[in-house]
Amino acid sequence: MRNLLMKVSYDGTDYNGFQTQPGGHTIQDYLEEAIRRLSGEQLKITASGRTDAGVHARAQVFNFYTASPVPVERWCMALNTWLPEDIVVSDAMEVPMEFHSRHAAKRKTYRYSINANQYPDLFNRRYQIHHYGKLDIDAMQQGLTHLIGTHDYTTFASRKSTKPSHVRTIFDAWIEQDTSMCRPGTRDQGIIHTYVSGNGFLQHMVRIIMGTLLEVGEGKRHPDDMLVILEAKNRAAAGPTAMGKGLMLWEVEYNIAGNV
Amino acid sequence: MRNLLMKVSYDGTDYNGFQTQPGGHTIQDYLEEAIRRLSGEQLKITASGRTDAGVHARAQVFNFYTASPVPVERWCMALNTWLPEDIVVSDAMEVPMEFHSRHAAKRKTYRYSINANQYPDLFNRRYQIHHYGKLDIDAMQQGLTHLIGTHDYTTFASRKSTKPSHVRTIFDAWIEQDTSMCRPGTRDQGIIHTYVSGNGFLQHMVRIIMGTLLEVGEGKRHPDDMLVILEAKNRAAAGPTAMGKGLMLWEVEYNIAGNV
Repeated sequence: MRNLLMKVSYDGTDYNGFQTQPGGHTIQDYLEEAIRRLSGEQLKITASGRTDAGVHARAQVFNFYTASPVPVERWCMALNTWLPEDIVVSDAMEVPMEFHSRHAAKRKTYRYSINANQYPDLFNRRYQIHHYGKLDIDAMQQGLTHLIGTHDYTTFASRKSTKPSHVRTIFDAWIEQDTSMCRPGTRDQGIIHTYVSGNGFLQHMVRIIMGTLLEVGEGKRHPDDMLVILEAKNRAAAGPTAMGKGLMLWEVEYNIAGNV
Repeated sequence: MRNLLMKVSYDGTDYNGFQTQPGGHTIQDYLEEAIRRLSGEQLKITASGRTDAGVHARAQVFNFYTASPVPVERWCMALNTWLPEDIVVSDAMEVPMEFHSRHAAKRKTYRYSINANQYPDLFNRRYQIHHYGKLDIDAMQQGLTHLIGTHDYTTFASRKSTKPSHVRTIFDAWIEQDTSMCRPGTRDQGIIHTYVSGNGFLQHMVRIIMGTLLEVGEGKRHPDDMLVILEAKNRAAAGPTAMGKGLMLWEVEYNIAGNV
């Protein structure tokens, strides 16, 4: 028996999220089915965490135990032949038997993308929301900074969260503005990518942060309100949950050999 | 009556090409229907040229005559509300009555994109072909250069072409290699974008050039063979027609006010 760790990217648009659920058609279902076709094993994989319906991953990480003799370097190409074209496995390595993709994750980074140009970029329409109308990006950056640190993020968690503790640590959060597609002489503000990096995230956390941050960008809230909102520990204090399509699991980091 | 010129980008994946045809579901059909909904006019638009099924456009240009009083600066936003999300109109201007999008086009540039990394980039899967296996990019560049100039491009035209002359001018052709997604320690060669810029193109011309150029990259043909192939003036001398999905109409240039 070996413990294999793999990296997978996916376009979440057409799936019911990562994790297996009664309705089926999840990323996990397709990965487990591809493994079954390759190795004949009906097994369960463990991921670094779930992602919601419509949310994407550049680099999700999962592991599973296999008795298959298929050499580790042949797994990715073989699995990809059984996977739909919007799910691609791109790394595989053997890790210690005790390695667990979720428990061992030290840092996860999400990216949320907002197109703030006048016209949507149709070639990236599945991976960004379109928001035209002036955004104060400095204010958004300022508001975002208030969230860095170790806090009770109840305000930014779905009311359905059943986690015993809502304390998490955000290590860093920053905005990158890509103005390469801005057309001269317009009020185009480019693509605004917000990165949030932490030790773990509550359900809808990044999306609620982004829904609130957009209100700061629109001038409806002051950047320093973010602190008040955070301290309220009340979902009602925050803004709406931003659409899932703008969110991408960007990176998962580990301290051990499982660092991919 | 005014003559309006517009720029449109589209993802050709789900359409039967640009130009209206009996089977319907073309880019032109959707544009004309959006205009009808906006202005009430049942009119025909004229584009800089057609694109095949599955081929994309970053910047296609078209014009049409309208009696509508809608101000020119309001057309794009209004049309986009009636268009599917994979067709976006992004520029509109009034041009002289005699302006004709096809006749007045001085230079058209196409881009063809090949992913030469081990794994496909699923986020761009609709806009590039995946070719893993060593490509000699210098040889491809050398072969491509032989095609620059004014030539009879019969070799690189569909056998179905009914054009009276196959003489065209390729002003420039070049390759840009984007290695930003290459993974260290692999044989990834990045995304290879080939640009071909000319005064006009025959049916399938860029795709047949690319199918042949890939054989040069694979070492099946010598770069100087491109000259022999060109001079054969015979479709049978060239390689296969590369898939439409890798092709994008990149830019159309005009000398007059219609330069967009």
